[in-house]
Amino acid sequence: MPAAFSDASLINKAVFTIKGLAMDGVEKANSGHPGTPMGLASITFEIYARYMRHDPKDPAWIGRDRFVLSAGHASMLLYSILHLTGYDLPMGELQAFRQWGSKTAGHPEHGMVPGVETTTGPLGQGVCNGVGFALAAKWKHTKFGQPFEASHVYVLASDGDLMEGVSGEASSIAGHLGLNNLVVIYDDNRITIEGSTELAFTEDVGKRYEAYGWFVQRIDGHDHGQIRAALDKALAEKARPSFIVARTHIAHGAPNAHDTSEAHGAPLGKDEIAATKTAAGWDATRQFYVPEDVYAAFGARKEELGKAHADWRTTYFAWRSANPALAAELDAIEEKRTPPDLFEQLVAAVPAKEDATRNTSNAIQQVAAKLVPSLIGGSADLAPSTKTLIKGGGDIGKGNFSGRNLHFGVREHGMGAICNALALSGGLIPYGATFLIFSDYMRPAVRLSALMEQQALWIYTHDSIFLGEDGPTHQPIETLWALRIIPHLYVVRPADGLETAAVWALALQRKHGPTAFSLTRQKLPTLKRDAGFDPKVMLRGAYTVAEATGGKPDLVVMGTGSEAQLAEAARTALQADGRKVRFVSVPCLEAFMAQDASYRDSVLPPGIPRVSVEAGVTLPWKAIVGEKGLAIGIDRFGASAPDTVLAREFGFTAESVVSRVREWLKTAG
Amino acid sequence: MPAAFSDASLINKAVFTIKGLAMDGVEKANSGHPGTPMGLASITFEIYARYMRHDPKDPAWIGRDRFVLSAGHASMLLYSILHLTGYDLPMGELQAFRQWGSKTAGHPEHGMVPGVETTTGPLGQGVCNGVGFALAAKWKHTKFGQPFEASHVYVLASDGDLMEGVSGEASSIAGHLGLNNLVVIYDDNRITIEGSTELAFTEDVGKRYEAYGWFVQRIDGHDHGQIRAALDKALAEKARPSFIVARTHIAHGAPNAHDTSEAHGAPLGKDEIAATKTAAGWDATRQFYVPEDVYAAFGARKEELGKAHADWRTTYFAWRSANPALAAELDAIEEKRTPPDLFEQLVAAVPAKEDATRNTSNAIQQVAAKLVPSLIGGSADLAPSTKTLIKGGGDIGKGNFSGRNLHFGVREHGMGAICNALALSGGLIPYGATFLIFSDYMRPAVRLSALMEQQALWIYTHDSIFLGEDGPTHQPIETLWALRIIPHLYVVRPADGLETAAVWALALQRKHGPTAFSLTRQKLPTLKRDAGFDPKVMLRGAYTVAEATGGKPDLVVMGTGSEAQLAEAARTALQADGRKVRFVSVPCLEAFMAQDASYRDSVLPPGIPRVSVEAGVTLPWKAIVGEKGLAIGIDRFGASAPDTVLAREFGFTAESVVSRVREWLKTAG
Repeated sequence: MPAAFSDASLINKAVFTIKGLAMDGVEKANSGHPGTPMGLASITFEIYARYMRHDPKDPAWIGRDRFVLSAGHASMLLYSILHLTGYDLPMGELQAFRQWGSKTAGHPEHGMVPGVETTTGPLGQGVCNGVGFALAAKWKHTKFGQPFEASHVYVLASDGDLMEGVSGEASSIAGHLGLNNLVVIYDDNRITIEGSTELAFTEDVGKRYEAYGWFVQRIDGHDHGQIRAALDKALAEKARPSFIVARTHIAHGAPNAHDTSEAHGAPLGKDEIAATKTAAGWDATRQFYVPEDVYAAFGARKEELGKAHADWRTTYFAWRSANPALAAELDAIEEKRTPPDLFEQLVAAVPAKEDATRNTSNAIQQVAAKLVPSLIGGSADLAPSTKTLIKGGGDIGKGNFSGRNLHFGVREHGMGAICNALALSGGLIPYGATFLIFSDYMRPAVRLSALMEQQALWIYTHDSIFLGEDGPTHQPIETLWALRIIPHLYVVRPADGLETAAVWALALQRKHGPTAFSLTRQKLPTLKRDAGFDPKVMLRGAYTVAEATGGKPDLVVMGTGSEAQLAEAARTALQADGRKVRFVSVPCLEAFMAQDASYRDSVLPPGIPRVSVEAGVTLPWKAIVGEKGLAIGIDRFGASAPDTVLAREFGFTAESVVSRVREWLKTAG
Repeated sequence: MPAAFSDASLINKAVFTIKGLAMDGVEKANSGHPGTPMGLASITFEIYARYMRHDPKDPAWIGRDRFVLSAGHASMLLYSILHLTGYDLPMGELQAFRQWGSKTAGHPEHGMVPGVETTTGPLGQGVCNGVGFALAAKWKHTKFGQPFEASHVYVLASDGDLMEGVSGEASSIAGHLGLNNLVVIYDDNRITIEGSTELAFTEDVGKRYEAYGWFVQRIDGHDHGQIRAALDKALAEKARPSFIVARTHIAHGAPNAHDTSEAHGAPLGKDEIAATKTAAGWDATRQFYVPEDVYAAFGARKEELGKAHADWRTTYFAWRSANPALAAELDAIEEKRTPPDLFEQLVAAVPAKEDATRNTSNAIQQVAAKLVPSLIGGSADLAPSTKTLIKGGGDIGKGNFSGRNLHFGVREHGMGAICNALALSGGLIPYGATFLIFSDYMRPAVRLSALMEQQALWIYTHDSIFLGEDGPTHQPIETLWALRIIPHLYVVRPADGLETAAVWALALQRKHGPTAFSLTRQKLPTLKRDAGFDPKVMLRGAYTVAEATGGKPDLVVMGTGSEAQLAEAARTALQADGRKVRFVSVPCLEAFMAQDASYRDSVLPPGIPRVSVEAGVTLPWKAIVGEKGLAIGIDRFGASAPDTVLAREFGFTAESVVSRVREWLKTAG
């Protein structure tokens, strides 16, 4: 027991302080969720004040435990405890809850407040992030030992978090892997926005978690003795992740709001807050009040934690001295280090053989895995198709966390959210792979990777109707653009081996943002590049592959991925017609858009007619080729047939494309 | 027991016929999944030949049971049994599996083959569709009685189906509702694409379903006695949906492929097929072989089923005579009837008060619910926020299926897939509601609603950064366009009450496709429309609200939803500058695109500069306003603050928009 909080009445006071801050913060903002922070105040207090290994003075301490508020709407709970425990979050920030320019956003945002390990709010994601953090800790502990000894992850989850399928996916994985360093506490308050959980949520959640292979306990979430006993048992558990069903009451302590759905998403109101404070024996007129002895006790606890951290550092530096090679590897991983000649080495690894970009990508990934030890990942049960195994990397499985290949099962969404946490955990560059169409299944996680500016690699194969016989359910049409329009996400669609190497380099060097790969199932030819081609120009996202001959271009034909070859063929045929045609390949539109105007204008000269070719929706391409330009694509769902037949029927042969362009030139060019 | 199949050796022969067709179909296509059809042949045979109430001569029989192959990749299983049982699917179609122009697509597609109740392939969806079908049957049975008595739904689900979170969401709902007319059979073959389920799926699935409140049985999926006993018990169960864990073997009967992951997704090869046929005592040289006595027995069974259907019809017409009012209501529902003056009645229902479109929509929905009895739906635990309850409609809950309000819990994806089945079930126009940002959580289901051309209404509120304090995790930026680019989906974003009525009419009259609503949290003013305005023009998707004064327009300013008022303000200010400015509102871009060119050109005259205003990504708008046009929007993630502050900071005040346009006109106009 920490010396700081040896007195039960002080504990009660600290718990009520959290409740008061949450009530007052939501009231002042006139917006937010007061009920859940009140219901979870006791549990959160116990975790932060007694169990969690953390250091408010060093939120980035690699050996720390992690806390995830999956119920992100209860953000005032997190802000309150971070303030009290001594993180750099002054009272002024709590008072500016949900206001422009404050750090205390409506939902906790990673990167804005020290101690917020991940952005939560979209329900279910935090539970999966917890699984990812626990997995990362296991992996690092297995690899490095001491620095990551006994790292634990604590997650607070709401009804909503556990109704969402994504949390079920990740929880099944956690049970499968036996992540005994993970403790999820279920805020079983029986209240949802629409009313009682009796309306829609009557399953036996604890039993479901037992079925996933978890160690399940049931407690009164307001009884500190029970909370401690359950956490003690959870930490003592050797084989299974822990799930603690904590029966709580929303707006606990509020005389009228207690146990009501109204307390979920609206301020309690001045009268109810006053009544709550009065009932607790507090001065009803004081807002944002933290008693001096509560501050003092948290301050003392902060000192204790600082000492524990210092002790850890002593052992850690001893470990470094005793294990210099491991320590060097740890540093490389923590920095996500890539060699300075990464691009050149990946380009050198491009196989001579013409192949599908999923296969070329696999060859390049092998080299990347050697050069970048941070790279680990897996597929949603499609590794033989996505070609994403790291050869000789070893499988990660129960009791065996030293490998580099994860097996996510058919759980795209859980995969995405777990990968986000691997990235957030520091030092890992995770990848998650599936067919491009199934990016839809994990879209909320992909969006969060972009919002949090995390280096996650989303490797999507079978990236067009040319996957063939699987038909329209599996054939992306709108999918590429649906990803491209997510802010801060890069989408790369290489046209051949060389571009595949380039986009791997781009993605591995992009430390503060995710990259989605779009790779083919089918074999692609190698583009014929003009003499004097500088490979590094590929990193600019779009570039001239073959310049017009016979003078300045009077037409630019551009393509991406498997359709670049069609743009190339169109250039050849139209040059033969007497046109002066430039062929531009566009492996990454976002990288191209980020270039300066002079480069962009040099590739796509203003005023010169443009054609784009991509086997997907055309409307957004019209923004690139212009109103009078020609966007060749597909604006209907696909069909089930062999790829060559589809190419013929959908007009994606060289002949079709050339004739479409010729027809268009009659009126446009 | 059906007389047709009273002989055990004939049953074995029929089962092997299915296996043979599946092997041969995949082999001929040189693509597909042979192993699962072989593993599920016995179960599928028993369901179709013995249990299912269906009539191959009338696949649309309203009183039929339904079969869903959630494991859609095993499509040859479904095609084989449909062929054998006498649906209109000739042998030639089986032989053209996965080929251009055939009905036998790689995954079963609704609308292509009679007897295919829903499109499956994206895993997990079929399980949820089964829940939706069972719910629809309960609803109709409660409302109408006899015609829907004892309608059952049979679902075959794979490991993958049950790993996906979406199936867990819907299964929890099914258990909650006690849908005892639903039987899900789990193909527990322990093989996934990456290898054994030991790699990633070691949870106790049966126990998980017990936790959901299901009746769970465990059987040998190749033992016909056990299959029948389990199905008998499932049909006798009074209170719970049934989950049958059937231990099966992938590629059952194939000497070498048996129990291998290779048998999952690739043809077995000629030699293995021959060996399998030989092992079964069949002629290894015959392909697509159906023994005469097997055809004969299925033919006899078809006659039996036809007689049962005829008996049902007798009772049904007696029911109609005895219940003329109910029969009339049934007809109205089955036809999804809407009154001829629906548009006028909805327009008349527009409240005088200026309000958020979510509130106006709620008012109009009340009238729509009275006029269109097919309309039922619910929200993913956000009804008080999305404002989508049908007042006085009654809740649908366990043992009470007569209401019109569903409670989906925080399960957007399950909601989407359940709604798809409600639409497919015939007669229902379902709606599913949540915040716009969470359309990402249900995107695969939305896509399927578009692919299947089903009339599902997706009601999304809180449709921009102006939801305010909840911050970037909840603020759509790319979301509207991510929906707009899905083929065949309409996205409607009304700017005021009148447009809200119009888009409700549009959606309710669009029988063969889904519509996504984008509605505001915040209050909107009523647009000032020119005198002589014909409300019906709103149905054209974009229209002139206020014409330029002083001559032909030299500028068109358009806006959608909450930003239409800014376009309107810009028009007023720029007219005052001496410009001639037309203000166009765009409640539904897809409907506008579907108009003929002369209408489109009349609204957006070619050559006249254009400005668009929408609080989301701008790139696709550049396709509408043209290269030189101005697209005012947001290309970064949002922020947490009150909406008026966000409007100021993000440049969405009238002043900001006007000054942006003025600045742009200096160079462009």
